Amino acid sequence: MSTTVIKISGSVFDWNVIGGSLPPLLDLFKRLHNEGHKLILVAGGGETARKYIELGRKIGIDEATLDDIGLKAARLNAELLVGGLRDFAFPSVPETLDGVAEAVTGGKIVAVGGFHPGHSTNAVAALIAEKVHANLFVNATDVDGVYTSDPKKDVGAKKLESVSVSELKRMLEHEEMRAGTYELLDLVALKIVERSDIKTVVVKCDPNSVQRAVLGRPVGTTITVN
Amino acid sequence: MSTTVIKISGSVFDWNVIGGSLPPLLDLFKRLHNEGHKLILVAGGGETARKYIELGRKIGIDEATLDDIGLKAARLNAELLVGGLRDFAFPSVPETLDGVAEAVTGGKIVAVGGFHPGHSTNAVAALIAEKVHANLFVNATDVDGVYTSDPKKDVGAKKLESVSVSELKRMLEHEEMRAGTYELLDLVALKIVERSDIKTVVVKCDPNSVQRAVLGRPVGTTITVN
Amino acid sequence: MSTTVIKISGSVFDWNVIGGSLPPLLDLFKRLHNEGHKLILVAGGGETARKYIELGRKIGIDEATLDDIGLKAARLNAELLVGGLRDFAFPSVPETLDGVAEAVTGGKIVAVGGFHPGHSTNAVAALIAEKVHANLFVNATDVDGVYTSDPKKDVGAKKLESVSVSELKRMLEHEEMRAGTYELLDLVALKIVERSDIKTVVVKCDPNSVQRAVLGRPVGTTITVN
Amino acid sequence: MSTTVIKISGSVFDWNVIGGSLPPLLDLFKRLHNEGHKLILVAGGGETARKYIELGRKIGIDEATLDDIGLKAARLNAELLVGGLRDFAFPSVPETLDGVAEAVTGGKIVAVGGFHPGHSTNAVAALIAEKVHANLFVNATDVDGVYTSDPKKDVGAKKLESVSVSELKRMLEHEEMRAGTYELLDLVALKIVERSDIKTVVVKCDPNSVQRAVLGRPVGTTITVN
Amino acid sequence: MSTTVIKISGSVFDWNVIGGSLPPLLDLFKRLHNEGHKLILVAGGGETARKYIELGRKIGIDEATLDDIGLKAARLNAELLVGGLRDFAFPSVPETLDGVAEAVTGGKIVAVGGFHPGHSTNAVAALIAEKVHANLFVNATDVDGVYTSDPKKDVGAKKLESVSVSELKRMLEHEEMRAGTYELLDLVALKIVERSDIKTVVVKCDPNSVQRAVLGRPVGTTITVN
Amino acid sequence: MSTTVIKISGSVFDWNVIGGSLPPLLDLFKRLHNEGHKLILVAGGGETARKYIELGRKIGIDEATLDDIGLKAARLNAELLVGGLRDFAFPSVPETLDGVAEAVTGGKIVAVGGFHPGHSTNAVAALIAEKVHANLFVNATDVDGVYTSDPKKDVGAKKLESVSVSELKRMLEHEEMRAGTYELLDLVALKIVERSDIKTVVVKCDPNSVQRAVLGRPVGTTITVN
Repeated sequence: MSTTVIKISGSVFDWNVIGGSLPPLLDLFKRLHNEGHKLILVAGGGETARKYIELGRKIGIDEATLDDIGLKAARLNAELLVGGLRDFAFPSVPETLDGVAEAVTGGKIVAVGGFHPGHSTNAVAALIAEKVHANLFVNATDVDGVYTSDPKKDVGAKKLESVSVSELKRMLEHEEMRAGTYELLDLVALKIVERSDIKTVVVKCDPNSVQRAVLGRPVGTTITVN
Repeated sequence: MSTTVIKISGSVFDWNVIGGSLPPLLDLFKRLHNEGHKLILVAGGGETARKYIELGRKIGIDEATLDDIGLKAARLNAELLVGGLRDFAFPSVPETLDGVAEAVTGGKIVAVGGFHPGHSTNAVAALIAEKVHANLFVNATDVDGVYTSDPKKDVGAKKLESVSVSELKRMLEHEEMRAGTYELLDLVALKIVERSDIKTVVVKCDPNSVQRAVLGRPVGTTITVN
Repeated sequence: MSTTVIKISGSVFDWNVIGGSLPPLLDLFKRLHNEGHKLILVAGGGETARKYIELGRKIGIDEATLDDIGLKAARLNAELLVGGLRDFAFPSVPETLDGVAEAVTGGKIVAVGGFHPGHSTNAVAALIAEKVHANLFVNATDVDGVYTSDPKKDVGAKKLESVSVSELKRMLEHEEMRAGTYELLDLVALKIVERSDIKTVVVKCDPNSVQRAVLGRPVGTTITVN
Repeated sequence: MSTTVIKISGSVFDWNVIGGSLPPLLDLFKRLHNEGHKLILVAGGGETARKYIELGRKIGIDEATLDDIGLKAARLNAELLVGGLRDFAFPSVPETLDGVAEAVTGGKIVAVGGFHPGHSTNAVAALIAEKVHANLFVNATDVDGVYTSDPKKDVGAKKLESVSVSELKRMLEHEEMRAGTYELLDLVALKIVERSDIKTVVVKCDPNSVQRAVLGRPVGTTITVN
Repeated sequence: MSTTVIKISGSVFDWNVIGGSLPPLLDLFKRLHNEGHKLILVAGGGETARKYIELGRKIGIDEATLDDIGLKAARLNAELLVGGLRDFAFPSVPETLDGVAEAVTGGKIVAVGGFHPGHSTNAVAALIAEKVHANLFVNATDVDGVYTSDPKKDVGAKKLESVSVSELKRMLEHEEMRAGTYELLDLVALKIVERSDIKTVVVKCDPNSVQRAVLGRPVGTTITVN
Repeated sequence: MSTTVIKISGSVFDWNVIGGSLPPLLDLFKRLHNEGHKLILVAGGGETARKYIELGRKIGIDEATLDDIGLKAARLNAELLVGGLRDFAFPSVPETLDGVAEAVTGGKIVAVGGFHPGHSTNAVAALIAEKVHANLFVNATDVDGVYTSDPKKDVGAKKLESVSVSELKRMLEHEEMRAGTYELLDLVALKIVERSDIKTVVVKCDPNSVQRAVLGRPVGTTITVN
């Protein structure tokens, strides 16, 4: 039985889209579970995290605490996944790596937000993939793969079918690290993918793309390690 | 030294007002603390709680879990209080009554959200007042006191200077109890106020009214037990 | 497979009767479990709770702490259930709603006492029924149903075959709320039953009545929601 | 400032005497605290523990679980100490050795029951004395010192002014170890006293004797290590 | 299905032998698990514990804290067992008796170190055997059974095929109890074996002897209770 | 009063040097504490971590679990700091960022190991500095500052008096990230230093250098942010 960790873009939980975006994803997860796929879902913090962090920064809260607020917002999103999946899901949101590993032994879908300040939810997803010896890490984002440059800013950006970790690291090297601004696969997540050679695919966070990724069909961008 | 529990209306944390409403309240709490007032703050869940609960109910999440989501949203608001008060505040948000009592012994301002499903943040505030033997429970809401009827719906509603618990219970008896809809002092909160004869004032959640209440000056509506 | 939450009257644990009352109940629970009924047991505090609370009140302990003492006494009673059920039971007594939900996924009988000050064990039982989507909530008390008045004080009291929540609320409205005095279904428990339309039966806490209730045969008083 | 660990005999909490025995002890502890004595109180399980354990053994509960039930009963007794001491006491009952050590740093009286199955509350008290580097361990029991034989069974038993650990070990060597039957200083407690050379006095658990012991005046039996 | 608790000698984890000693033991445990034997492994502290304790004692750390350090070292050894057994093992190391009992319900191999200061890992193993109603307690040590005297010091020492608890107690009575020096079955462990009549075998900690013991074949020394 | 976070090189805890290296450091920390410096100590994992990780990797343990083992080894080292500092130290080793922040409010020296897999102890130290608003982060390593290249491999390596974060990031960019191999300030630690502009000094981990750093005297290499 395959085990897949899916990082779910925080944007799925934005209030103007969530009513439409969440139910079909929940249906997909139930279906995949019934077909024998073991799933671990990692919810991004999205709009809630962003708003709390922005305000918190204005009133002088330190970055470590903002990280903490961001991951608690992500856990609220994970609660929606757990509640919406009802008896398909492990009934609470684990808050540590060991907690996830224990929950997984029960055979249900497990959903988490963040773990500890200093880690993006991408890094959390990669750590989980390592810990539970997952076969696949699907990073479901708001773009449909890795581009040669930011497709939101550059119309000439081209999507890559595959990209090596070392190449991706070079692209991300100059990212800033502030609470709430982690994008795509940050460096920590990438290094974890690299050190454990985790099969990783970056796809758009819609039911069709996620399903293709879980089933091993071509979609998005594959990260290669070598 | 007096000890005061202040329930802070969730509406203070609404995104369209929070930037303006929060900083002066934080300043007030620091000032009161410096003047020797021991403060315990209980944040309501506000807009964040309401949105998550509304969506959760739509996707079929049970009421107990929605309660839980609501209190976790309230804890996010409490995190803003803690972070914004910096070294004035106990550095984390206690999640149990014992945890609050332990935190209070350190002499700093303590901020909490909810505790456990089935309790409004008002009931939480009343329980804390009981547990720490507080001198005063200030219920800072989005109206400026208890009215003869809902002032938002009835222009003829009159504000009461004081009201007895038994009268208030009659007024609230027919409230519905669904996650996110607890208003004013719900019945559990009222019964706690009654059983321990806790001095209670209902005021508008603005710095001036809260300050008057903490200092014992006439403001809002006093709840009388007898 | 049906899931039933059974609130077990604290009186079962009174020292002058417990040696006789407990073993047949334990046998019943094992039998029902073997027949495929998923059971969650909520132990009342009974004599132990009452004694500690009475003494505590005399030496000046606040009501919130007395609530806490009462629920810890109820947990001691739950320990007897767990220990007596041996390998039929989840081996520890969960202390939170999430803890119960996690324990239930293991497929064994789960026994709990209280959760948090401010809640009766009836409210705890109702919350659990909500959280685990139980099919039935059996409130096993020391009377054999709901009466038109207190059958211990009024010989003319008549047992009702069914009663609506709103009627019951009217009957309970004037109950006092002090640690250890919660009776029948208190208001919080009733409101939870109402908001989630939980099928509820009040029966006497003897093996025969409890068995009839779990099997869906007519017994005691049914609470109707409408 | 001296630090004293006082093991309080479970018999103080017996229901027929507790109303009379507890208040004067609480008064003593407050007075000693005000005079600068740092106190850590360890409550025995007494009648509650004994009853639960006896019943539990009858319905087939294993000894390890009975130990656990016994220590939880002792914690209930500790809750009475905490609640009755109000603001003199650390507001909750620590459940681990580290928890005690942390609580002690706050400067209030700390009260505990047991820690973990397999340890008597005497062993718990000795471990605490070791951990917090206490100056004195007062073992307040239901006899007024160590006798040459059991004074309840042998009228010729003589009280010893002092006794060496090795002598006492010989006397206790043949004790049985069943949940609820630990008496005086069991072997584990004695070995801890010995390995850390903890000044230890065995006295009757009445306010006068305990006070004499804490103040270092002659009373009961002193345990000598050499 | 039989349940066996195996105490694994800390010497297996000594750095000069561990690379050779651990893998065949892990293979044995996997094989026994596949054959339907339920296993609970208790790792001794070994060299790591000994080194930390020796140093700690030199720099003035109290014995209770040294006990704590020793059991945390034993937990590190348990982590190696868990990690090395991968999907055969419960994925974390429980830290309480209840935690073990919960973990065991999942059906995987469970590995632990110590629980609480004041207990040897032998006592921990005996408590677990009691709690989970194990059929057998295998004490795998660095000698191949119980001898008439210490075989490391006395060449005339003879191995016993069986020995009664009372005889063994006499032999151990004069052991010193300092953190890190618990040997064979200490008195607490023995008394637990005695009070619950746990079938116990002392064997050398090599795969062949351990396998013989688990399968009920003659090996090492059997402890008899009567 | 200044607050300083000191990362203590794991090499201080190597068994061939620890007896000599630890006592003078403990003396220094006590002295600095008495002079009013608030200290938070972060112990590296050193030899113990390295040995467990090396062995673990050989027997097939995943990197996330190895990270976990490494941080638990670092906590054992932190226990030595706590025990050796006796009443100068907060009596236990916090395991989360919130736990550290709570411990710090008590005014004692706080010592920690790691927090969560995926973070070096350097990153932990930087996060703590951020969270408690420390004035200074002293990274006490086994070299006496940052060199132009690895001084252990390159005799021509030159020590820098100061280095900018961006320069240092370039130097570290190609580090591998495997459990136990984090060196100097890894990228996560550096980004935290950068985002919060934390005053940081890299010095050799000897009492004289650490003292100079805490007192603000020139020593080692200063990290500049701009």
